[in-house]
Amino acid sequence: MHASHCGFPDLSRLVRPRNAVVVLGSQRPNSEGARLLENLSLHSRMEGELFVVNPPMRGDGPFRCWPSIADLPEADIDVALIILRAAYVMDALRDCAARGIPYAIVMSSGFGEAGPEGRALEQQIAALCESTGLRVYGPNCPGLSNFRDRMGMTISPAFKTDKNVGTIGIVTQGGGAGRNIVQGLSYGPGAALWLSAGNEVDLGAPDFIAHLARDPEIGVIAVLLEGIKDGKRLAAALDLARSHGKPVIILKIGRSEYGVRAAQSHTGSIAGTAEVNSAMFAQFGAIEAHDMDELVALARLAASGSVPTSDELAVVTFSGGAAAMAADQIGLQGLRLAQFAPETTEHLRASLPGYAAIANPVDVTAEALNSIEGLSSCLRTVAQDPNVGAVIVPIPADYGELTDGIAQAIIDAAAGASRPIIAVWMSRRLGSGFLRLEEHGLAPFLSLGSALAAVRKVTPRRMLPGAMVAAPAMSAASGEESGAAVACTEAAAKAMLREAGIAVPQGSLCRSPEETTAAAQALGFPVALKIVSAQILHKTEVGGVWLDVRTPGQAAEAHTRMVNQVQARRPDARIDGVLVEKMLHDTGREMLIAVRTDPMYGRVLTIGLGGIFVELLKDVAHRVLPIQPADVHDMLADLRHGAYLGQFRNLPPMDTDALVRLVIQLADFVSGRPDILEAEFNPVWVGPAGEGAWVLDALLLTSPTPERL
Amino acid sequence: MHASHCGFPDLSRLVRPRNAVVVLGSQRPNSEGARLLENLSLHSRMEGELFVVNPPMRGDGPFRCWPSIADLPEADIDVALIILRAAYVMDALRDCAARGIPYAIVMSSGFGEAGPEGRALEQQIAALCESTGLRVYGPNCPGLSNFRDRMGMTISPAFKTDKNVGTIGIVTQGGGAGRNIVQGLSYGPGAALWLSAGNEVDLGAPDFIAHLARDPEIGVIAVLLEGIKDGKRLAAALDLARSHGKPVIILKIGRSEYGVRAAQSHTGSIAGTAEVNSAMFAQFGAIEAHDMDELVALARLAASGSVPTSDELAVVTFSGGAAAMAADQIGLQGLRLAQFAPETTEHLRASLPGYAAIANPVDVTAEALNSIEGLSSCLRTVAQDPNVGAVIVPIPADYGELTDGIAQAIIDAAAGASRPIIAVWMSRRLGSGFLRLEEHGLAPFLSLGSALAAVRKVTPRRMLPGAMVAAPAMSAASGEESGAAVACTEAAAKAMLREAGIAVPQGSLCRSPEETTAAAQALGFPVALKIVSAQILHKTEVGGVWLDVRTPGQAAEAHTRMVNQVQARRPDARIDGVLVEKMLHDTGREMLIAVRTDPMYGRVLTIGLGGIFVELLKDVAHRVLPIQPADVHDMLADLRHGAYLGQFRNLPPMDTDALVRLVIQLADFVSGRPDILEAEFNPVWVGPAGEGAWVLDALLLTSPTPERL
Repeated sequence: MHASHCGFPDLSRLVRPRNAVVVLGSQRPNSEGARLLENLSLHSRMEGELFVVNPPMRGDGPFRCWPSIADLPEADIDVALIILRAAYVMDALRDCAARGIPYAIVMSSGFGEAGPEGRALEQQIAALCESTGLRVYGPNCPGLSNFRDRMGMTISPAFKTDKNVGTIGIVTQGGGAGRNIVQGLSYGPGAALWLSAGNEVDLGAPDFIAHLARDPEIGVIAVLLEGIKDGKRLAAALDLARSHGKPVIILKIGRSEYGVRAAQSHTGSIAGTAEVNSAMFAQFGAIEAHDMDELVALARLAASGSVPTSDELAVVTFSGGAAAMAADQIGLQGLRLAQFAPETTEHLRASLPGYAAIANPVDVTAEALNSIEGLSSCLRTVAQDPNVGAVIVPIPADYGELTDGIAQAIIDAAAGASRPIIAVWMSRRLGSGFLRLEEHGLAPFLSLGSALAAVRKVTPRRMLPGAMVAAPAMSAASGEESGAAVACTEAAAKAMLREAGIAVPQGSLCRSPEETTAAAQALGFPVALKIVSAQILHKTEVGGVWLDVRTPGQAAEAHTRMVNQVQARRPDARIDGVLVEKMLHDTGREMLIAVRTDPMYGRVLTIGLGGIFVELLKDVAHRVLPIQPADVHDMLADLRHGAYLGQFRNLPPMDTDALVRLVIQLADFVSGRPDILEAEFNPVWVGPAGEGAWVLDALLLTSPTPERL
Repeated sequence: MHASHCGFPDLSRLVRPRNAVVVLGSQRPNSEGARLLENLSLHSRMEGELFVVNPPMRGDGPFRCWPSIADLPEADIDVALIILRAAYVMDALRDCAARGIPYAIVMSSGFGEAGPEGRALEQQIAALCESTGLRVYGPNCPGLSNFRDRMGMTISPAFKTDKNVGTIGIVTQGGGAGRNIVQGLSYGPGAALWLSAGNEVDLGAPDFIAHLARDPEIGVIAVLLEGIKDGKRLAAALDLARSHGKPVIILKIGRSEYGVRAAQSHTGSIAGTAEVNSAMFAQFGAIEAHDMDELVALARLAASGSVPTSDELAVVTFSGGAAAMAADQIGLQGLRLAQFAPETTEHLRASLPGYAAIANPVDVTAEALNSIEGLSSCLRTVAQDPNVGAVIVPIPADYGELTDGIAQAIIDAAAGASRPIIAVWMSRRLGSGFLRLEEHGLAPFLSLGSALAAVRKVTPRRMLPGAMVAAPAMSAASGEESGAAVACTEAAAKAMLREAGIAVPQGSLCRSPEETTAAAQALGFPVALKIVSAQILHKTEVGGVWLDVRTPGQAAEAHTRMVNQVQARRPDARIDGVLVEKMLHDTGREMLIAVRTDPMYGRVLTIGLGGIFVELLKDVAHRVLPIQPADVHDMLADLRHGAYLGQFRNLPPMDTDALVRLVIQLADFVSGRPDILEAEFNPVWVGPAGEGAWVLDALLLTSPTPERL
């Protein structure tokens, strides 16, 4: 989708007015009106004239006051800043429209957020805008802060302290959270403009995003939204920002039902469906933040002018533990550890102690910290490596002067580095080294997890493979360890289970179509037919499974066809016959139960979703044996897709009690057999309550020299 | 599993020795030996005698030195503290054993972490322990810090500054990360003991955990592990801690392959399988942390003596945006917003301004901040509400004196409150209010996400339902909006699609068994039979679908049986006949494609895993229409279970190009039909490369008054 970009107003005169008028009802000290006047007169650089209209003419302030907008002397006024009780706002806006003032910022509250009367006032304002062309910003907002041009059209008492100016444009609806962003930009890349949309009666967040997208001095746009009034306009604004190459970082409240409800009651706007919102942000290239600290961190990172050039990262630290933790988080985020170029390795070898770890992650060791120049030179070398997209520098603890020196080395190396050097101050003790980094705009992260999540989000997505998580337990066991193991046939394994009193379907091994028909009739239809051959482990692939056979004729036909087909495909296989089993109806669930031998903990039990789900979902839970029934209930609760076990697709909930009993039985069975190296029961059929749980297929790997008890 | 708890040594004499001997090779200033002596002589309160052995007899320090352990005067020495070059350590340990010194702490490095020679030395130490009963702590560790009894048996230069003593026991392997934990406990609940296991040649992390579990003055145990030497002993130690009611917070490095490798190369130990480790921790009641800051935060929370009493939380703040964000994170973590008792609501109504939000989340409004006593009283009231498990107080920004007052109100209310009051300092500007909270041990979190993740982890798990995420888009559309919509039959919908050139299986509507047999023969076996009736939307449940019919006889039989069965079950339904379709073989994937009308964005396209996966996985991606083929590729990349689309269960990868073409065709088809309110194609069959993509079932909901273009 490429939305039409026209239709967004040019807000230059609003954002940087020449002449302005303040319309207020009181100037008593500490009132919102007084704060606005203070911001404009003491802390702003207004280019033109600032008029004050105070309708009741209470001359209680140091400014000359006019009784109304109509009474003002001849002047080209760009914007009216209105702080009046809600009931008086309409009159002031009508006066603006009559005089041809193009913009009004209404900071007063008491509108849509306050109830039906306020909503009626909002409708009147919207109608006035529609009929006259007046553009209204607000109401119920703290105003507009133009840090770049030092124009504080805001009631915020903190405007005077907002001195760190940069290229980030901020768009919010509420006030408090917007201040959070401004404070987060106190050092390093700062804010240029903060537009706070309030109730969005006329102008709204999409207009502000679009304005910032077209403002050549804006580099990054940070957006915090509680509600979305017009999804298509928002999409169009994001698209416009993308087409101008401006990263947009967006945090949308309302990812849970509680958030949706709270945001609605706060702003009275629709929150939108979280899933569709997130999809739309991704579609138009916006980076979604999931918490305020992440919003700020992403904006700082994106505005630093030095974002990771690839997902291949270097780690440089002076603690082996911190190195390992950083590597761990890199893997968990699906990022990669860079392979250093030979020059880098040579430089590190030449300049670090012999016992330092010079492969990535680099542990320079505590000794290397005695030379700040040396450390800085190592950092610079790594940051220049063409294989490195960014350098992560974890600082595990505050060591006073030592960490001051490390901070300085990072600052020195970062100056002029072509790749970002990202410091992570891991200690809760925010010492002077932290402040030094912060004041130099290096914006240290406070945890490895948050640092690498942010790096992942600002790294172009095409480069990112999936997370490289530690291999699940199953694959290890079926590998080399079982090399010398012996596999039982399904029929043999099931015979052992039956002997142990474990539920397996009734069935018999049949050697002719006639035997199969007779067996099927004895069992009762429908039945399943499975080829039996020690040479064939994967029956389905050779046509060796036929389910849901419903009549005697079908049974005989299936036997003949199956044997012929398997023989044609696997002429090497010796076919013992066909296993005919009673089919369990398809209202059951397919689960997996396995027991394997872990090198660390001995016998480990695994339960998970079975059948087709095993490979796809890898949704399993583990426990070290022995276990109690309560442990099995816990394991079921641990499964991510527990929904499958309950009421599902018009099926009643499954017979959990029977499953738990079966798990305990199977665990006991394997525990009594030290010769079993690995046991996998998949699928296990679990019916609705009262119908039990059955092992439909079983794989047992035993050691070649059985040591039965 | 309840492991045997015996076999863990009593370490009381090690942790709190009376007489000790330091064995070192150098006392030159700033050496590790000098630092150890300084810690013991200047910053410790040793009860007995401190001897110094310096074999080379370099009298270069202020202490009287003995040439060897054997030469020491008569004394009952509890522990030898050894800092010698690795090669000399064995001799010193032999002397310890000969003299009957029960414990030795070896801080020297140059052992297993350094290579094969060091590993050989470790084997000698282990053999000595085995044969003599000497217990060795280390090597390659910073020593043992007993903050509680002020005994600094450590080379750490920071020991002298570790003044905040509490009831938390710390177990680590490495040094740097352990210091991080100690620093994180500088305020509020402090550390009592820090045991740093190093290379674990003899004593190891399980022994230390077990000791702390049995130490009556320890309340909480914080553990950081890189490797696990003996999984069963670790499990037994955790079990022992659980049986003593001591919460264990554990961070295990090695959740990704990179972390496993880095931890191995750092410590030379096995990392263990992340999945099994996590399962084991949960099994024995340990709380797993995923980052250092979380480890510290969880330990502080668990040790505060006031953990959440339930998962029903209250939010009290002075910013509507912060209230909404906190509510959002509560929902995302699967926690709940408490319903206030009537007294609480009354108190809030009486004491807050009329426009304050007095339902949970509470927004006291900025005006209420003028009275610190009032705010404190509100907080106390909410924290006393029997329905409230904990109170979350988000502070969105630093407002100088104002936030100092808020911090004081929290401190006042927290004193004596029966439920925890958890402050979240959301601003990057860590002002004096933050410090005040920190110094009073209130341990403010730095983000809402981290606060609520921690609350979730310390809240007893039985209380936690699943995360309450915002409802997915699909359910909304099929609800009230489509109330007046008209559903097409499958046959009619497919006819429209066929007309539009979209691939649907060949098929025909048959009214008798004979027609069905003829149609099946014409199409070629296998075929699928589906009942056709405007009254039956869910065909499967009434036996109205018969798949994989393979012979003419089966076809006729299936027709008769199906019609009889459906008529028996749904006597009200008018049956038009049976739809006979060519079956597509089962090497395809089942996908879902849908287009619905979103109130915010208009037409939204959804792609996801189809068939049985729809309800279970809800694995879907959305885009606002119109889209390009590249968008469809992006959507496929967005799916969580993308593995299903590639090589899967011995199937070749699916025909992605055909799927992308089909998606575009379907999007175009629906876009050209404004009367279609909702279209769902499920399943869509996608074959291996070259076999195309087919719509197997289609549901079209149209507006009652069609407005076809």
